[in-house]
Amino acid sequence: MSYTPFQAPLLGALLGDQEIAACFSVKAELAAMLRFEAALARVCAAHRFIPENAAGAIATLCETFEPDLPAISAATARDGVCVPELVRQLREAAGESGPHVHFGATSQDVTDTALVLRLKDVSAILSERLDKIIAGLDALAGKFGSNPLTGRTRMQAALQITVDDRLGAWRAGVGEARERLDTNFEAMNRLQFGGPAGTLDSFGGKAQLVSVDLAHALGLFNPPRNWHANRVATADLASSLSIVTGSLGKIGQDVALMAQNEIGEIELSGGGESSAMPHKQNPVLAEALVTLARFNATLVSGMHQSLVHEQERSGSAWMLEWMILPQMCVAAGAAARNMVSLLENVDALGSS
Amino acid sequence: MSYTPFQAPLLGALLGDQEIAACFSVKAELAAMLRFEAALARVCAAHRFIPENAAGAIATLCETFEPDLPAISAATARDGVCVPELVRQLREAAGESGPHVHFGATSQDVTDTALVLRLKDVSAILSERLDKIIAGLDALAGKFGSNPLTGRTRMQAALQITVDDRLGAWRAGVGEARERLDTNFEAMNRLQFGGPAGTLDSFGGKAQLVSVDLAHALGLFNPPRNWHANRVATADLASSLSIVTGSLGKIGQDVALMAQNEIGEIELSGGGESSAMPHKQNPVLAEALVTLARFNATLVSGMHQSLVHEQERSGSAWMLEWMILPQMCVAAGAAARNMVSLLENVDALGSS
Amino acid sequence: MSYTPFQAPLLGALLGDQEIAACFSVKAELAAMLRFEAALARVCAAHRFIPENAAGAIATLCETFEPDLPAISAATARDGVCVPELVRQLREAAGESGPHVHFGATSQDVTDTALVLRLKDVSAILSERLDKIIAGLDALAGKFGSNPLTGRTRMQAALQITVDDRLGAWRAGVGEARERLDTNFEAMNRLQFGGPAGTLDSFGGKAQLVSVDLAHALGLFNPPRNWHANRVATADLASSLSIVTGSLGKIGQDVALMAQNEIGEIELSGGGESSAMPHKQNPVLAEALVTLARFNATLVSGMHQSLVHEQERSGSAWMLEWMILPQMCVAAGAAARNMVSLLENVDALGSS
Amino acid sequence: MSYTPFQAPLLGALLGDQEIAACFSVKAELAAMLRFEAALARVCAAHRFIPENAAGAIATLCETFEPDLPAISAATARDGVCVPELVRQLREAAGESGPHVHFGATSQDVTDTALVLRLKDVSAILSERLDKIIAGLDALAGKFGSNPLTGRTRMQAALQITVDDRLGAWRAGVGEARERLDTNFEAMNRLQFGGPAGTLDSFGGKAQLVSVDLAHALGLFNPPRNWHANRVATADLASSLSIVTGSLGKIGQDVALMAQNEIGEIELSGGGESSAMPHKQNPVLAEALVTLARFNATLVSGMHQSLVHEQERSGSAWMLEWMILPQMCVAAGAAARNMVSLLENVDALGSS
Repeated sequence: MSYTPFQAPLLGALLGDQEIAACFSVKAELAAMLRFEAALARVCAAHRFIPENAAGAIATLCETFEPDLPAISAATARDGVCVPELVRQLREAAGESGPHVHFGATSQDVTDTALVLRLKDVSAILSERLDKIIAGLDALAGKFGSNPLTGRTRMQAALQITVDDRLGAWRAGVGEARERLDTNFEAMNRLQFGGPAGTLDSFGGKAQLVSVDLAHALGLFNPPRNWHANRVATADLASSLSIVTGSLGKIGQDVALMAQNEIGEIELSGGGESSAMPHKQNPVLAEALVTLARFNATLVSGMHQSLVHEQERSGSAWMLEWMILPQMCVAAGAAARNMVSLLENVDALGSS
Repeated sequence: MSYTPFQAPLLGALLGDQEIAACFSVKAELAAMLRFEAALARVCAAHRFIPENAAGAIATLCETFEPDLPAISAATARDGVCVPELVRQLREAAGESGPHVHFGATSQDVTDTALVLRLKDVSAILSERLDKIIAGLDALAGKFGSNPLTGRTRMQAALQITVDDRLGAWRAGVGEARERLDTNFEAMNRLQFGGPAGTLDSFGGKAQLVSVDLAHALGLFNPPRNWHANRVATADLASSLSIVTGSLGKIGQDVALMAQNEIGEIELSGGGESSAMPHKQNPVLAEALVTLARFNATLVSGMHQSLVHEQERSGSAWMLEWMILPQMCVAAGAAARNMVSLLENVDALGSS
Repeated sequence: MSYTPFQAPLLGALLGDQEIAACFSVKAELAAMLRFEAALARVCAAHRFIPENAAGAIATLCETFEPDLPAISAATARDGVCVPELVRQLREAAGESGPHVHFGATSQDVTDTALVLRLKDVSAILSERLDKIIAGLDALAGKFGSNPLTGRTRMQAALQITVDDRLGAWRAGVGEARERLDTNFEAMNRLQFGGPAGTLDSFGGKAQLVSVDLAHALGLFNPPRNWHANRVATADLASSLSIVTGSLGKIGQDVALMAQNEIGEIELSGGGESSAMPHKQNPVLAEALVTLARFNATLVSGMHQSLVHEQERSGSAWMLEWMILPQMCVAAGAAARNMVSLLENVDALGSS
Repeated sequence: MSYTPFQAPLLGALLGDQEIAACFSVKAELAAMLRFEAALARVCAAHRFIPENAAGAIATLCETFEPDLPAISAATARDGVCVPELVRQLREAAGESGPHVHFGATSQDVTDTALVLRLKDVSAILSERLDKIIAGLDALAGKFGSNPLTGRTRMQAALQITVDDRLGAWRAGVGEARERLDTNFEAMNRLQFGGPAGTLDSFGGKAQLVSVDLAHALGLFNPPRNWHANRVATADLASSLSIVTGSLGKIGQDVALMAQNEIGEIELSGGGESSAMPHKQNPVLAEALVTLARFNATLVSGMHQSLVHEQERSGSAWMLEWMILPQMCVAAGAAARNMVSLLENVDALGSS
């Protein structure tokens, strides 16, 4: 039983997200890597770099291949990436087609592209939840929008506003965050392909043709050049994940303040219970939104540190991304799911 | 003599930037605020909220008004913003037009809009320097692009590449960073206007008309609603400033590694001297690029924490932006300027 | 299969740590919580707050109790802590002794004390590894200490030094980091006990006596007052974990630089392999040390944000600690283990 | 007029601190550097490394020397430290004693020791303010301690407590923070002295004797070895500065919550005014405490990144400290000063 920070250890259902975590499971990662190797073999055959029948054999093998996980894990501790051992196993299993596996590619091509393929799934999950949040905010506006509310600035009562005014600010934040997230997921949706030193040197003059076809086969766009050492897109994706959790955390903070006993501007069902005080109803989902916002706001810094990615490939900076980006996705998923639940739990909004 | 971190205290010329710092001077801030108050008065008069002659008097006053700075500073320590005292001084100076100053606005409208107006200048300065960097990289490609270079991955020699290959990665990073910066500066180029609680309640049904005209008068676009408590745009601008410094820091790190004595893949003039070892030539500009990248990568976290901006206006979160965003602009300016100089100092590139 | 960032997903053996992760497993957490409840019952009976036989029954039950984990997980999503449901299950299982379970305590008493009990194990593991690191550095000094080495400042060759000179700097950093870690683990070794609002109100004038006995029973010291909302010790523990990974990361960075092909100041066995370039030996452990240093340097910020812990208990700030502190412990464990391995892999050190 | 982030630009009196900023002024830095050079000259003469009369001439010169600041600033942009040019100017001014200036030392010896000398002043200022805070909390306890207060957990009313209960938590946090700050300032109070590559090679077998005497002359302790590349002490000092601001920020957050109109558990005089709503009294000092806490919690990350300080001296990592540590000191000073003022402004505390 290994440690999962999103359980902490029992908090998975509050601070974690099973659906998004599944995109970063060993199984999902290896499946995406095998998809890359299969597509690579086919495209290499189409351009006559490897024999047609070897490509067919490799692609078929990739569909059902069950890697030896303990061996991969052990090798990864030595190699810093799982690809060398995965490729070794694949080559062994492919028999005489073995030498044609992974033609012209490097570990980073496989690893980054396999990340990109799974981020598409993450994007779809988040997108659906953000739709529900917008719909939930609209529904609250329909029900409670015209209720009066005390506008508050610098933690002091200012002027009378309406629930619609505050919901409008919430919706604008979520809407702008969502736009940025979509843009950045779109920008990430690209093939990584450069070969050992980023020059696709095994493909000679055909490098761009192969790259275009490989991107097409994987449903990705083909960037002008590899992005082995250019991590702008990953850093900016991290930023927009944090902007999403931040805009939801702002709502969470507001809800926790509105739910204070003396203020009572929101009525929530499904609040948390206390081990010592049965009368309490804690705004746990709202608190969790603040937590997840501050968590991602903390982590985003490490993704920006990773921009200092030396030479043609930095093991250090790249591994730092691996430790951080999946967590930020999971935190964004948890925040979006909690926000959906929280909006469903609102029984009243505004001053009476 | 107050402390300036970009001098540290004598390092202003290396880690600071006078041109960008000037955009955040007291003088520039007050000038932008007075520009807002003048435009507001004229637009309010056009919509008959204040008398035409009062507007004229206020606008004229704003052109030459010299605020009592010590009084503003003292009041700011109490009020947390300088606007209340600035408005008080303006009203006093405006005589009978005084009561019409600042009609319908709130401190945050003035402060945020005055920030936006100065960010336009910051954007122009950075843009010009990024142009020079792209041109400088192109010039190096022209001179040294075909030279051989050892491709290095995970700090180990991999395959032979050319100088063009590495320059291409540098240029791609800077190019992508720049696109994001431009997009985010463009998104910031908008009026802040909401009145005390974000509802422009003094303007009744004419609020949107007034807002459109005020935005137009100031050369800004008019957003669908105020962004008092929605800080997505400021957080994302901070992210892209850090992405710029990060993509330049990657180049700096590469240069420092290339300049190692045993490696000698770059020849630089203008290196730093040592107090103890006259033979040394330290790659100071390259080091400074790494420093500035890590500095902004650190600070970006605080701008994301500021997304948790409670209710209609959070003094805490807002002031945190003030402490961070200007520094990030200055650091980006310093990095861009150092990069321009560093590229000019390159006398040779690639393996001999 | 849930996501674990320290596998990432296959990198557990490099960037994760099974031994330390086990301290944060569900099993370990619940065991520590049951230990608290058992000790509490006995002490409450000794002070006549609950019947002696109820205490015996509860303590016996706690030794073998198997909680219904899915029910706890579901309740935790609602309550934000697992204690209310755990206590409910315990009370049900305790039959007529049930009402005496958890007497006078609150969720935070159980959760924080259960954390403290497990941090003792973390401390022991880290301590043993740090001993090995010091011994490993001493062994290298014995073998290679008098070898010449180029002293390097600002990435440039400075003066000739010896291997001993550099090892001395490494050892000093690790030694100072270790002192701080020990001090902070010692400071954390204290009971959390305050009851619902921090006032131990169920115990009247006997509160301090009960507290002293409970601390004694659990092998902890009894602080002058509860630390529900005073998170100085947790923030400082996090700082020293990051200082440990930072001082090891400095060594990792040095090793990666010494291992560069043209420089060759270190010979390492057991280097990482490449999927594309069989000749390469990547300094993967050294890179991982840098990664783990930057990871903890990123996370430490969030632990400091958690110091802003409002009122008598902040759900938001507290949950943020849960998401971060265990990860920092695991990262410190991984770094220490990698350092031990790396030192064992050194075959030569210094210039030839 | 250069930019000062603690004015922002007009907020110096709220978010900045003139007394502490003065410790980091150009004037204070150069004075401390000259103090080092003077003491070095005398100690070198005592050990016969330089002539007695040269030492006297140098020491006398250092007392009145007025450096050419523009020349230093220009040189610093090239050298990355101001010491080479300062030493050049000193040597020129010292005439025939010139060659004996800076004997055996390196830029980092001067720079780090000059920092240490000024941190003593910072420590004294903070210490005095923290005393006042403790006294202020005690005074509030004397006046209002027995008043009832609603204990609040997870932003919900829990049980009735007293003002003393909450003040006790505040005081414990500040007290523990202060202990750590004192310990870390004490640990910083040490000479930096290693010479060009950390080996004091100009002093042969007398290196330790010279070092001991130099430390003594400057009122510092003499560490077992130089700490050029071992930045544990600076990182930990930064941590404790952030722990101080965090423990004050917790109080600030509580005060802002207590000051909410509907809750009214605190009465404050001297609150901030609004430009639009004359009736408001904003808890500006309390907000500023939260801001300063989050600011330092952000910056502390960069100081930990600086632990990855490569080889015998890292320009990058070292310069990052310069950009961050002074700011953290100033922020701690501002927070402590604001806390003193805020406590003085409390007119009532507790529920009525």
